[in-house]
Amino acid sequence: MAVLMKGAEVAAAMKEKMLKDVDELNKNGITPCLAIVRLGSKPDDLAYERAAVKKCEGLGIKCTIFEYAEETTQDRLIEEIKRIDGDTSVHGILLFRPLPGHINEDAVKYIISPGKDVDCFNPLNAAKVFAGDESGFAPCTPEAVMEILEHYGIQPEGKRVVIVGRSMVVGKPLSMLMLKKNATVTICHTRTRSLEETCRGAEILVAAAGKARMVKDSFVSGDSVVVDVGINVDESGSLAGDVDFESVEKAASYITPVPGGVGTVTTSVLARHVIRSAMAGLGA
Amino acid sequence: MAVLMKGAEVAAAMKEKMLKDVDELNKNGITPCLAIVRLGSKPDDLAYERAAVKKCEGLGIKCTIFEYAEETTQDRLIEEIKRIDGDTSVHGILLFRPLPGHINEDAVKYIISPGKDVDCFNPLNAAKVFAGDESGFAPCTPEAVMEILEHYGIQPEGKRVVIVGRSMVVGKPLSMLMLKKNATVTICHTRTRSLEETCRGAEILVAAAGKARMVKDSFVSGDSVVVDVGINVDESGSLAGDVDFESVEKAASYITPVPGGVGTVTTSVLARHVIRSAMAGLGA
Repeated sequence: MAVLMKGAEVAAAMKEKMLKDVDELNKNGITPCLAIVRLGSKPDDLAYERAAVKKCEGLGIKCTIFEYAEETTQDRLIEEIKRIDGDTSVHGILLFRPLPGHINEDAVKYIISPGKDVDCFNPLNAAKVFAGDESGFAPCTPEAVMEILEHYGIQPEGKRVVIVGRSMVVGKPLSMLMLKKNATVTICHTRTRSLEETCRGAEILVAAAGKARMVKDSFVSGDSVVVDVGINVDESGSLAGDVDFESVEKAASYITPVPGGVGTVTTSVLARHVIRSAMAGLGA
Repeated sequence: MAVLMKGAEVAAAMKEKMLKDVDELNKNGITPCLAIVRLGSKPDDLAYERAAVKKCEGLGIKCTIFEYAEETTQDRLIEEIKRIDGDTSVHGILLFRPLPGHINEDAVKYIISPGKDVDCFNPLNAAKVFAGDESGFAPCTPEAVMEILEHYGIQPEGKRVVIVGRSMVVGKPLSMLMLKKNATVTICHTRTRSLEETCRGAEILVAAAGKARMVKDSFVSGDSVVVDVGINVDESGSLAGDVDFESVEKAASYITPVPGGVGTVTTSVLARHVIRSAMAGLGA
């Protein structure tokens, strides 16, 4: 039976350090503040927003929600983001993506200044992740994966890491964070042949494919560490990860649950980014 | 005996198309122009410069060399690059790296505008490569690798590609170009355990480690396609790739030689980038 890697445990450990930092900020008259920018009100966005606000407020981070109609024009959105970005009391900006189809992401993504771009939307932050430069903000989810492994004492150094999924929000940046830790990284996706065999060869397997329960027990060995980034709603309407938890937990050595795994830590990473941005203002 | 993938053959095929484009440019009164910016005169830089100038001039691309003393200050260099970048008759800028130690690359790399950054120094181009966006300029060497494979009819789609090396000039960007072509990509490096076994599992193996003859025949199988990006000078002073050519050519199915392989095509890719930049000016 695999050891359960619980997001709440990791988040609790992160919280201690963050509370100290927020205290330090408060002593300097600063309240860290996250601006959440949302167009429309997709249920997924709202669920993440609720979790992010709850996490932030529990840490003393103020959240300001900027909600706009889904049909907001690109020009108006750019104008609004510029205004929010220019507000010195705002330390981080989270913009929900994907944006509605009539808005060209390329026209918007440079607007959030890199120092406030706490979820790595700006290509300047993405370029830093690519280069292994830790001075920028990595996307929150891949950083959460690294945080969980570190908390449970699993070192990627020299290990065979297989990542299923190649998105710009998880798979690709995670591959760079893993490389930075000296893992040997394999990136798989829908066109990968013999996916099962490739996954079985992994010492650390990260599922970020967005396909409910696709990773079966035949994809792992008794030594596998399995991290599940998926959040899917299955046919019966219930929440499921990319990993078939019931069978895989019997076959692997470590596993994250869904819910209660990566997602829980992702909002902690987001909060930490906001605090880090505010601390930078201290000249700390 | 492996099929020899000759850089000259690939370059010749590329040349045909490029000559037509240059002709089109000339008809519009435009001579494509590459500015080469060099600090000091390292033998490696000079060798590449000679090859680049020869390739460009053979295609009707004008090359202007800006040579500065190695001790040129950062401020002066930035001023010079800005001036060159602002010259509308210059379509591409190649800046030799690494820069001398007293110059902070971070302060310089945004100066070359992305549209003239024909060797992907500006992080905005790197971010595009990372995102799989082909509207920017990828670094010339990894693009040359893709060009050679394509010329010889080798499709990376669905194949196991193993890249040895994780630099920002070859390994990392190449992994992204391979992903874009739907390969399953593994990135290896000095900390990789069981490198030999991992390489032997590759259908396409790219050696970009910078270590003379490190890839032996035991690293390949009879089906392996081997691309050698290395240019090293061995103990006896002679040029050697990262692949032990003599033994590997007997064991693999395809192989590139060094010299006469990737390097030959790299300068063709550079020339093509300059032409593409000039064509963009046509509104083409």
